Amino acid sequence: MIKIAIIGFGAVGQGVAEILLRRKEELEKKIGKFSLVAVTDSRGSIVDENGIDIIKAIERKKKGRFDGKSTMEVIEGVDFDVMIECSVTNIDDGEPGLTHIMKCLEKGAHIITSNKGPLVADFHGINRLAEKKGLKFMFEATVGGAMPLIKLVKYNLAGNSIEFIKGVLNGTCNYILTRMEQEKMTYQQVLAEAQELNIAEANPDYDVKGFDSAAKLLILANALMGMDVKLSDVEIVGITDITPEAFDVAKSKNYTIRLIAEVNKKGYIGVTPRLVPIEHPLAIHGTMNAALIKTDLAGDVVVMGRGAGKYETASAIISDLIFAFS
Amino acid sequence: MIKIAIIGFGAVGQGVAEILLRRKEELEKKIGKFSLVAVTDSRGSIVDENGIDIIKAIERKKKGRFDGKSTMEVIEGVDFDVMIECSVTNIDDGEPGLTHIMKCLEKGAHIITSNKGPLVADFHGINRLAEKKGLKFMFEATVGGAMPLIKLVKYNLAGNSIEFIKGVLNGTCNYILTRMEQEKMTYQQVLAEAQELNIAEANPDYDVKGFDSAAKLLILANALMGMDVKLSDVEIVGITDITPEAFDVAKSKNYTIRLIAEVNKKGYIGVTPRLVPIEHPLAIHGTMNAALIKTDLAGDVVVMGRGAGKYETASAIISDLIFAFS
Repeated sequence: MIKIAIIGFGAVGQGVAEILLRRKEELEKKIGKFSLVAVTDSRGSIVDENGIDIIKAIERKKKGRFDGKSTMEVIEGVDFDVMIECSVTNIDDGEPGLTHIMKCLEKGAHIITSNKGPLVADFHGINRLAEKKGLKFMFEATVGGAMPLIKLVKYNLAGNSIEFIKGVLNGTCNYILTRMEQEKMTYQQVLAEAQELNIAEANPDYDVKGFDSAAKLLILANALMGMDVKLSDVEIVGITDITPEAFDVAKSKNYTIRLIAEVNKKGYIGVTPRLVPIEHPLAIHGTMNAALIKTDLAGDVVVMGRGAGKYETASAIISDLIFAFS
Repeated sequence: MIKIAIIGFGAVGQGVAEILLRRKEELEKKIGKFSLVAVTDSRGSIVDENGIDIIKAIERKKKGRFDGKSTMEVIEGVDFDVMIECSVTNIDDGEPGLTHIMKCLEKGAHIITSNKGPLVADFHGINRLAEKKGLKFMFEATVGGAMPLIKLVKYNLAGNSIEFIKGVLNGTCNYILTRMEQEKMTYQQVLAEAQELNIAEANPDYDVKGFDSAAKLLILANALMGMDVKLSDVEIVGITDITPEAFDVAKSKNYTIRLIAEVNKKGYIGVTPRLVPIEHPLAIHGTMNAALIKTDLAGDVVVMGRGAGKYETASAIISDLIFAFS
């Protein structure tokens, strides 16, 4: 019996819980019996070592934050085998996710996370502790949502040397650039539209200034390219200064503009707006994410997928769970 | 110590052997010590239970076919743990690959193959025997060369229900259609060009009439969609009747024409030329392959990669080897 705890019960955490409930039979064929024994949020938790009632937990959450045991009390006092960490991303110091993850590894629980913060703060520290303890540390959901990238490079392209990874890793920026390209609108006009559609946050800086893409790129660099780099090592230029005129010039040469995150073997790591041929796979439209992986044996491999969303991100977490336990 | 035998020592078999030699140290970190104990072709073999000299084997092969023990004698008489089956594809009855595979499973060896024939002839028979014996049966290289698709759907998208898979699975057809689209040439003109460039065979029927795509699609249907179908269940229309005028009409509506292989949950399985919007990921250019996988949780996922080539196909085999043994 695999005992699961979900830390952070926002959209992604709830999405995971729903899939665990709805797909229980199919999932148990793959990984054996499991039980969700705890869900926590920033205020409290619901714990039942015999398996919590997921529908009731989601209904309870709709009414406001949990009470009862805190996340740290759950981590220290409840018996579980795997923690699914979906608390809020904080790329400054990775907290509170980083502490959650380190404490869980110390007590012997496997980690699956969608939270970029802890990996930005200390990927190699987490990875070393997991290896030392012989525990799984899976993080497909931190980069590109449902776009399969981390395990794709690590396992499906295993045996290849990776020359570079270039990607469109932020759906908000890509939506804005696509609309500017198609509608000849200004950055400010499209941003307002994106905010109305909930594609951009009220404070859009984290996305449009390139930090979200940079955080994801850093994870790729440290996890897949054998690097040991910090956020301050990443060149970061956002999309806020791009004009409709720039798109006109690009278009006249059959190019468009995309925010491209690139890490390569020579050590370059940066997020910058770049000219991309309009028929290139990275000239992707809307909120989709895309990545081009250049390898020595397999040549160029491209993946595209939805970079965000409740079930999309939950799906990446579930794929990690199946991968880890089957 | 993993003892490996390579059956079929053409471009792909030699590519695998070269990678086993050149990447020995890195590979052994992932899967432990291994040794290539036999390589065979349609005439004979080289066998050394202490590990054959790969450079000498490749040099020997350049001079003509092997002599010595036949493939069946090697399968019956040599001790190995995993067979890499790269003999020539025969989609009529799957032989001789099918017999190689069944004999190896019976004796207790794992199977990794790039050979579509046996899977077209009897995927479920092979799969049942492998499961009964507790042996690995891996076949990433049978579909799309270096484009990661089989394991991607099976593992990276595990937990999802697959609505459909649509793909461009034959590089020769895609090259011909791309050139017709771009150069307004006739099918016959482009075919001649493709034959000169060795992109099309002297007898191109297997590719251009859609059989190669259909064989690959059949593997996807049986392996990934839970179906039990035969080649005669596949609707197959090739590209030989497509005219430059059809491209003109398509282009005027912002479409192009591609040979699309589709299998869906409702049971449809077919390979037919179709109109594809020019900005759609399946409107891919040249000899590349692409696939669009529609899932319930992850939404649309797209992969693209090189569908053929010595090292590309070998890379898919090596990824299976690492996946199976690490």
